[in-house]
Amino acid sequence: MPKTYDRDSVEFSRTLAFTDGLFAIAMTLLVVSIGVPQISGGDESIHDLAEGIGDLSGAFVSFFISFAVIGRYWLAHHQFISLLKAMDPAFVGLNLVYLAFIAFLPFPTALLGEYFATPLSIVIYAISVAVVSGMEVVLFRHAHRAGLLLRELPQDVYRFGVFASLSPVAFFLVSIPFAFISTTLAVCIWFLTFPFGILAERWAPEGTDELLH
Amino acid sequence: MPKTYDRDSVEFSRTLAFTDGLFAIAMTLLVVSIGVPQISGGDESIHDLAEGIGDLSGAFVSFFISFAVIGRYWLAHHQFISLLKAMDPAFVGLNLVYLAFIAFLPFPTALLGEYFATPLSIVIYAISVAVVSGMEVVLFRHAHRAGLLLRELPQDVYRFGVFASLSPVAFFLVSIPFAFISTTLAVCIWFLTFPFGILAERWAPEGTDELLH
Amino acid sequence: MPKTYDRDSVEFSRTLAFTDGLFAIAMTLLVVSIGVPQISGGDESIHDLAEGIGDLSGAFVSFFISFAVIGRYWLAHHQFISLLKAMDPAFVGLNLVYLAFIAFLPFPTALLGEYFATPLSIVIYAISVAVVSGMEVVLFRHAHRAGLLLRELPQDVYRFGVFASLSPVAFFLVSIPFAFISTTLAVCIWFLTFPFGILAERWAPEGTDELLH
Amino acid sequence: MPKTYDRDSVEFSRTLAFTDGLFAIAMTLLVVSIGVPQISGGDESIHDLAEGIGDLSGAFVSFFISFAVIGRYWLAHHQFISLLKAMDPAFVGLNLVYLAFIAFLPFPTALLGEYFATPLSIVIYAISVAVVSGMEVVLFRHAHRAGLLLRELPQDVYRFGVFASLSPVAFFLVSIPFAFISTTLAVCIWFLTFPFGILAERWAPEGTDELLH
Repeated sequence: MPKTYDRDSVEFSRTLAFTDGLFAIAMTLLVVSIGVPQISGGDESIHDLAEGIGDLSGAFVSFFISFAVIGRYWLAHHQFISLLKAMDPAFVGLNLVYLAFIAFLPFPTALLGEYFATPLSIVIYAISVAVVSGMEVVLFRHAHRAGLLLRELPQDVYRFGVFASLSPVAFFLVSIPFAFISTTLAVCIWFLTFPFGILAERWAPEGTDELLH
Repeated sequence: MPKTYDRDSVEFSRTLAFTDGLFAIAMTLLVVSIGVPQISGGDESIHDLAEGIGDLSGAFVSFFISFAVIGRYWLAHHQFISLLKAMDPAFVGLNLVYLAFIAFLPFPTALLGEYFATPLSIVIYAISVAVVSGMEVVLFRHAHRAGLLLRELPQDVYRFGVFASLSPVAFFLVSIPFAFISTTLAVCIWFLTFPFGILAERWAPEGTDELLH
Repeated sequence: MPKTYDRDSVEFSRTLAFTDGLFAIAMTLLVVSIGVPQISGGDESIHDLAEGIGDLSGAFVSFFISFAVIGRYWLAHHQFISLLKAMDPAFVGLNLVYLAFIAFLPFPTALLGEYFATPLSIVIYAISVAVVSGMEVVLFRHAHRAGLLLRELPQDVYRFGVFASLSPVAFFLVSIPFAFISTTLAVCIWFLTFPFGILAERWAPEGTDELLH
Repeated sequence: MPKTYDRDSVEFSRTLAFTDGLFAIAMTLLVVSIGVPQISGGDESIHDLAEGIGDLSGAFVSFFISFAVIGRYWLAHHQFISLLKAMDPAFVGLNLVYLAFIAFLPFPTALLGEYFATPLSIVIYAISVAVVSGMEVVLFRHAHRAGLLLRELPQDVYRFGVFASLSPVAFFLVSIPFAFISTTLAVCIWFLTFPFGILAERWAPEGTDELLH
């Protein structure tokens, strides 16, 4: 029998401590780059300062978007881990790959904040987010197959879980060609994941709510 | 019955590990930006270095103020969590929103350190602090309503707790118009929260001390 | 009898929390330095942005290599600690020396990313990695001698463990003179550690798999 | 009876998680500021790169000194906490003040690395280190008086502990006037703390070793 790390083992909690530390750093990184505006000239008029802060508005928006996006992934990870009874070394390794892309997320978010109108920003952002969501599915699939879940999932509930995790990936990838027509249109396609998610709940097999949430 | 995470669950402790990591980063961020003064010219006279360090005095003050302000919020969060018997997913989500504003705090603090005389700095600082304190109330209110507290609070103790948390918000918001007359006056109004807090303890209903502290 | 910290003691878990925090920071550090490209001029054409991002490709590669390298060490540390039943103060101190070199790793990795063709980058990288691997052996040796392992190792299994940890050090140090002929050749020598590792497993004494993995 | 947080409480471990996170960040901060040398011109000769890296040698030394200094304080904190049976809110608050100075340490260390020959660097470094050691004594004194130690200390052992913690403070403060004669002389005085520490062990009352180490 392969080695596994139980829910109350040092190894299980270490992996989460590492994960949470990395998330916390990735979510506060962007503030470092927001410097206090330097006003040239001796008189610190309120008008100059307001202008200096206005120039930073892109950085503020970028910070809060980045915090929201990575925070959403942290919540999803937090909830997913609550379904596990144990980890195995392969899971710990896959989690590390997942974290590499989480640590990378501040870059595409900052890019989107600064160059919203440029299709390339949309493309890079959509790919990054699709990769992270894809890695979520990989982690879920491994946990299911290696018997790491607290309660074993019936095949239909498992398949629904994969489908629900993959649907945002699809919307993000589909939006890419539309970005070259209009970046706003591409972002609108992203938001279609929300009504689709609610719609998809109707197709959920019995027991999903209690087993996956 | 909705899912909750008990005090000794992995999920409860993870949320705190994440919270503490984020606080620790926000409190040490400002030191990164304090670089060693670069003295031009070959001779490193003590006078030049003293001047270079003197130029950084604003950054030092800003670092220690920021540490004190965010540290005070960490202490309050630490004490508030000691009243909880469990968290639920909504609490974890609200805590994340609270943390977004904690992570943002180094910016207004640095602004205040550099442009103390400009009313705009006071306004931005007062709003930021009011928002964080407001989020504390939101967390407290949710914990009370969702039955997450270790010991249920009588209605009058709960109302006193909300009132005590909201009173600094009031003082900070009231100070904003005064900042345009004198920034020192506005800061004096902030300090009124301390005598007011002591005064307010007299109106505390019986049992407050033991239930809330 | 000297003091030891058991697997379930506050001191054992603190050392790991500190270790994991440091790893998480070292692994996300490089993203901080990747700034969004600043395009001069008002028109944000997709061509200019693509060029700006293209200039950063070295930084991206460097980030992912660094994440992979330090991540591999984290996995090794995570697995090694799972063999321990306790720590003693000397182990905690040696772990700190090990962490100093982990914290340093982002620098040689960034150097390698930017100056791949220069032998000096290869030399600095090879020495850094050899030192970290050497410190792993020091930690393993101390744990074995001070009786900190969960299951005591027979002398031949212990010697095999040291040999397996030291072999990458040998390959990295041997590669240094070759770097002055060709940096690509030196990197090829590094990769010989993988087939060698698989080959070496054949020489493993009985029980290695179950005692060390 | 005032509220205390037991060794196995969420509040005890949170305070340590926060402390360890802050230490980890303070110890890795300096690497961020070490950028890869930028060589102007197209040809990346080994000579230019060696020169560029040579210019960074001060930053490397500064990083490893800083890591060693802050690491030594972490070890001391780690060992001190192992003597505690509980914390109280005042201890948590004092620990926060202690951490403010730990978070500040990278600055004087970097200053010392860059301007070793300037007395002012020595003065700032000596004061910073004296303050941190002084805060250690404050924490120890509070833990003793508030009955937070696992085993109550006899008055003579307690007094010896305070004396042992304060002696480095004395040496550091005494070195300050000597820095204006010679900075090397001042640093030599710092190193006198080590033989003095060994000498002082002879005066230790019976039971010290087992109660304090």
